[in-house]
Amino acid sequence: MDFALGEESRAILDMARAIGETEIAPHARDWEAEGTIPRALWPKLAELGFGGLYVREEAGGSGLSRLDGTLVFEALSRSCASVAAFLSIHNMCARMIDQSGSDELRGRVLPGALRMETILSYCLTEPGSGSDAAALRTRAVRDGADWVLDGTKAFISGAGYSDSYVVMARTGGEGPSGISALVVEDGTPGLSFGALEDKMGWRSQPTRQVQLDGCRVPAGNLLGEEGQGFRYAMAGLDGGRLNIAACSLGAAQAALDATLGYMAGRTAFGRSLDSFQALQFRLAEMEIELSAARVFLRQAAWTLDQGGPGATTACAMAKAFVTEAGLRVADECLQMHGGYGYLADYGIEKIVRDLRVHRILEGTNEIMRLIVARQMLTGA
Amino acid sequence: MDFALGEESRAILDMARAIGETEIAPHARDWEAEGTIPRALWPKLAELGFGGLYVREEAGGSGLSRLDGTLVFEALSRSCASVAAFLSIHNMCARMIDQSGSDELRGRVLPGALRMETILSYCLTEPGSGSDAAALRTRAVRDGADWVLDGTKAFISGAGYSDSYVVMARTGGEGPSGISALVVEDGTPGLSFGALEDKMGWRSQPTRQVQLDGCRVPAGNLLGEEGQGFRYAMAGLDGGRLNIAACSLGAAQAALDATLGYMAGRTAFGRSLDSFQALQFRLAEMEIELSAARVFLRQAAWTLDQGGPGATTACAMAKAFVTEAGLRVADECLQMHGGYGYLADYGIEKIVRDLRVHRILEGTNEIMRLIVARQMLTGA
Amino acid sequence: MDFALGEESRAILDMARAIGETEIAPHARDWEAEGTIPRALWPKLAELGFGGLYVREEAGGSGLSRLDGTLVFEALSRSCASVAAFLSIHNMCARMIDQSGSDELRGRVLPGALRMETILSYCLTEPGSGSDAAALRTRAVRDGADWVLDGTKAFISGAGYSDSYVVMARTGGEGPSGISALVVEDGTPGLSFGALEDKMGWRSQPTRQVQLDGCRVPAGNLLGEEGQGFRYAMAGLDGGRLNIAACSLGAAQAALDATLGYMAGRTAFGRSLDSFQALQFRLAEMEIELSAARVFLRQAAWTLDQGGPGATTACAMAKAFVTEAGLRVADECLQMHGGYGYLADYGIEKIVRDLRVHRILEGTNEIMRLIVARQMLTGA
Amino acid sequence: MDFALGEESRAILDMARAIGETEIAPHARDWEAEGTIPRALWPKLAELGFGGLYVREEAGGSGLSRLDGTLVFEALSRSCASVAAFLSIHNMCARMIDQSGSDELRGRVLPGALRMETILSYCLTEPGSGSDAAALRTRAVRDGADWVLDGTKAFISGAGYSDSYVVMARTGGEGPSGISALVVEDGTPGLSFGALEDKMGWRSQPTRQVQLDGCRVPAGNLLGEEGQGFRYAMAGLDGGRLNIAACSLGAAQAALDATLGYMAGRTAFGRSLDSFQALQFRLAEMEIELSAARVFLRQAAWTLDQGGPGATTACAMAKAFVTEAGLRVADECLQMHGGYGYLADYGIEKIVRDLRVHRILEGTNEIMRLIVARQMLTGA
Repeated sequence: MDFALGEESRAILDMARAIGETEIAPHARDWEAEGTIPRALWPKLAELGFGGLYVREEAGGSGLSRLDGTLVFEALSRSCASVAAFLSIHNMCARMIDQSGSDELRGRVLPGALRMETILSYCLTEPGSGSDAAALRTRAVRDGADWVLDGTKAFISGAGYSDSYVVMARTGGEGPSGISALVVEDGTPGLSFGALEDKMGWRSQPTRQVQLDGCRVPAGNLLGEEGQGFRYAMAGLDGGRLNIAACSLGAAQAALDATLGYMAGRTAFGRSLDSFQALQFRLAEMEIELSAARVFLRQAAWTLDQGGPGATTACAMAKAFVTEAGLRVADECLQMHGGYGYLADYGIEKIVRDLRVHRILEGTNEIMRLIVARQMLTGA
Repeated sequence: MDFALGEESRAILDMARAIGETEIAPHARDWEAEGTIPRALWPKLAELGFGGLYVREEAGGSGLSRLDGTLVFEALSRSCASVAAFLSIHNMCARMIDQSGSDELRGRVLPGALRMETILSYCLTEPGSGSDAAALRTRAVRDGADWVLDGTKAFISGAGYSDSYVVMARTGGEGPSGISALVVEDGTPGLSFGALEDKMGWRSQPTRQVQLDGCRVPAGNLLGEEGQGFRYAMAGLDGGRLNIAACSLGAAQAALDATLGYMAGRTAFGRSLDSFQALQFRLAEMEIELSAARVFLRQAAWTLDQGGPGATTACAMAKAFVTEAGLRVADECLQMHGGYGYLADYGIEKIVRDLRVHRILEGTNEIMRLIVARQMLTGA
Repeated sequence: MDFALGEESRAILDMARAIGETEIAPHARDWEAEGTIPRALWPKLAELGFGGLYVREEAGGSGLSRLDGTLVFEALSRSCASVAAFLSIHNMCARMIDQSGSDELRGRVLPGALRMETILSYCLTEPGSGSDAAALRTRAVRDGADWVLDGTKAFISGAGYSDSYVVMARTGGEGPSGISALVVEDGTPGLSFGALEDKMGWRSQPTRQVQLDGCRVPAGNLLGEEGQGFRYAMAGLDGGRLNIAACSLGAAQAALDATLGYMAGRTAFGRSLDSFQALQFRLAEMEIELSAARVFLRQAAWTLDQGGPGATTACAMAKAFVTEAGLRVADECLQMHGGYGYLADYGIEKIVRDLRVHRILEGTNEIMRLIVARQMLTGA
Repeated sequence: MDFALGEESRAILDMARAIGETEIAPHARDWEAEGTIPRALWPKLAELGFGGLYVREEAGGSGLSRLDGTLVFEALSRSCASVAAFLSIHNMCARMIDQSGSDELRGRVLPGALRMETILSYCLTEPGSGSDAAALRTRAVRDGADWVLDGTKAFISGAGYSDSYVVMARTGGEGPSGISALVVEDGTPGLSFGALEDKMGWRSQPTRQVQLDGCRVPAGNLLGEEGQGFRYAMAGLDGGRLNIAACSLGAAQAALDATLGYMAGRTAFGRSLDSFQALQFRLAEMEIELSAARVFLRQAAWTLDQGGPGATTACAMAKAFVTEAGLRVADECLQMHGGYGYLADYGIEKIVRDLRVHRILEGTNEIMRLIVARQMLTGA
């Protein structure tokens, strides 16, 4: 089943799927083994406008709706969720710079980012803080015409790989309103990176800690207003949650499609696997679950595009629902493959490993539940 | 979260909810105890056009879309799923008569049915056949200007209560294409009814077996063409599945709303129940599940309204997903009420009992899975 | 699969099962409809020693281990969980009186109770307190040679039916140590009962509120020491939880056995239901779940019999696990029966309704989780 | 909660746990990275009798019961499930050789195997056959005093690493009774190995295809009687299933223990993670699930030791239940760790990856369900 998309949306979906199949899918396992994504990939995606999906058209971006944006990530994730999710981060940063950066900063950073000759990374999480803004300790102190940053960021996708980092740092007092967003460019003295993290999945994304030791950046690298960084981050998160859910959806659908093919071709006890009724039931359950997830996600994206008050809750619900459904489906596909599902050759176990982190990042699904519960209990 | 409904649809939803709250909710438990629904209720619903939701406007009906139809059942089920589901059956029959009945039959049966002075029941299932058309044994044999029916129908809601029965009977050979649909009016010699069934829920709906012993009806009581009855029945089932799912959705939402209120007012260990984080998580899970169910259902209804080839699968998926989600939510609401949830006074246990049958009827959810699997494997 | 029981234990199991089949099963539905259990049943059970399962042999009881006690309830619940659970309450009370009652009280109350000419009920829960001892408000005040009780007890099985009530009342300050246990005999002035509760299940057990308005009982009706009532209650709860779990186990097993028979005899699409692989998988899942539940329960009973420090946690775990498994199995059996499962005639829906409350009473399964978590986190 | 083990059993458990902690745990991640287990490990385990757990004492083995055997694997898996499971395979082979090998073969192969100077691998599965014996195609043809083997075996743990291979080959007609078991020693001409398989987990176990191209082995390398190989294999499987379940249990318990420690030390929103009630509920659920799994497993092992007719079903049930519970617990532990759970450093994601295959091998859990269903329906 498929949600009724307009013609233009469908074209975006097809385009993203096509480039994924030609430029990403054949290499996904190699990139995972190498622990990195070749920089040559990005300009090819940028040619389709994927370097600035949410950047305004007048600034050279694609100016897509959130709904259309999710289609890009769903489609690319059919080839590799890790690559697609990495692209989502770049786009989240590009959007923030477009929306809140000074003209000077935008002029300096955006053009390369839109062409994806330069890549953007996002630095919010710290070793001691996940979803808890109050615990954010990285500091930025004003010193003349500069900001000087000190602190450590953890789990940074693209650390040591990207060209600019959007860093959340405390410029004021405790709490969310003391946090600002600043751009730190690669090569800034004092900027260094930890060892490559060895992760269960998302292995083609180089992930490291980011160290900021007296990193000095010009005042113009502040995004928007001082003290507004956390608000910008939260605003970006709604969309980020949609995208991560879209990545789960696309990858799980790819796993299901592969499983249908596998089961048609594989025999046991003299019959094709897909003729066993107990397995047919499971196929049906996966189809139902993924179909519900797809509709729910698109509805949430549409809600965010409308801009109403329920958008944050809708995105939180979709993030929890879709990332959990996606993982269950991928895991079940692995089981349907039997021993072959456990082998890297079949591509299914990679999907399970990649999707596993979607239940954790962009706010854990436990935090999603708290957001939903709060809205139910207090209407806020 | 709520799907974006048009203004007219929202008005239908509100209207149905309002009449449910005034005319149904205060009496739902009594009607359950009495095992019947007073006939005086129906004309009040008919005044709002609920007697012929899918009957064409030119025939005096409301001519609603399937989507708008589900809103009526969702809204009424907030007051009583058993009453709402009974209304759905009447409407399924009215629609069949409007679509396939001869002018004479329509003129004779529809006006009273639209005013709900007469009630229609649907007779498909037999003691030995559920979802298996081939096993249908009730026969109708042509004898001059009449059809003569013999057989037994089981689980008939409204048996012994309704004024006309739409009966599926075998007029030809084995298989689906030997089945025709005929209208048998109350009072027809040879028409009798079994004992009142004692059921877990849906207790306000009088359910009995229907006996047809040489029941003679005029040839004009045949709906549409001979041998097309099963096709008509199947066509009606798509919408019937949406409606039963809508009944689950509305009743589960009522349970959840009641639970929020209960938990706000009830204390344990010195705190209100809704301040316990573990219970908040469950509230959130229920909200997520019901929200996904609502969107999925409306999407399926929209798909059926579009008339595309995927409609049957979409309706089957929605029926399975929503009726299971609805029951899980209602059951969890019972648990959140503790011992009070087990008492009839609180209205929650009735919802659990009523919704339990939604996983079974209109094709069991196991049959829904087979429909989905078949579509996946063969595209049909 | 069956845990290796000794010969004597197996004899108990068989004996209980046999009397259940002859004396209970044929009447279970009628008693449910009547809302009561005929008093003539009990002496028949008492002849087998079921009136004082845990009363010491020297006091005329059966002196069974907890493990053997669970076998009685498992076996009787194959015929009716509601009747078996009612018997468990009587036995919990008899045990408390035997263990903590004065010689005079024991001499007065136990003989009739052992013969089950008199029935005992247990009064802990109040309208505003479930698992929260601090909220217990019923008071007993010493007045000369008597205690005078005032308060309201809720959800009391056997209220208005039984001959003596073991009542938890506050004789001292706040908190658990202010609570004492007293016996209040039927006919005591000031003792009255609320209206019969209309419940989802356990309908053959008459349940009412118990009102205590200046009920005066002799000082000798105090069980054990003042201020120890809550401790006695908690000690009794471990065993009570095992028994309620045993009731879930037996009834669910009866449902599964009936389902196997039903599926062997019923056909669809020309084959017996039990030949459908998807349904076979579910049968297997039920068997696995119930088998695990049975072993886990017996292990917990054995642990309680050993008297080690982990017994309360073991009983809490078994209560949660087995009552949830039992309900899932019963509910799945209902589904396997299709529409017939929804009819009272088949006996399955009654099992679902009866078992539903087992997740709630004797401490909700949420409280069970808190007990387990506390033990994990603090070792207490 | 812990099953009441005898003193000797407890000593075995402690001994295995201790050597795991000193000799395996510190290196488990390195061995995974290297894709192999150093041969120097094995003699250390052999000193404790782990090279011949089920080899008769008179033949120099440990002669353990199945129950005690599971304790070894449960305890070792706390350090690394992959290493423990590899040891289980060796022991399965050693047992087969001890039970069915000729004196000559036993004298030649067993002493080194017991000292674990030589390692044994097991070759049943083929590229086109998993649980379906009829599909087994590897052939052994008698040629004078030799058997000549041709075929391909898939998913062979230890292929290209071990010293001897117990190979199931078809020596007769179709079906199980045409299969025999033969020992093929490393270095046999015609024996070769495929490329190292890249797997989701069990990465320290080198897994390859085994090629048999005219491999000639002496007639004395036949185990037991011709045509009995499949029966031997099946007999070994019961125990193999217990062991794989034990590996799931031990590793999941290690994950849970680590999670308790992590949650005590980690704070969010100013409180330790383990003080959040919603997370406490999940801890409790994991504890309940693992405790039930442990008891169920030991019961099944005890049943196999008793040798009754229900042993195969009991082992199949335990395999399915425990491997699924173990994986769920490990996965939930990962979630409780948040982002850190996804990093290899914390050791949790490795457990998830390792345990994932336990649902698949030794007969998939789908096959386990078929075994259970068959027993329910036919008593066989």
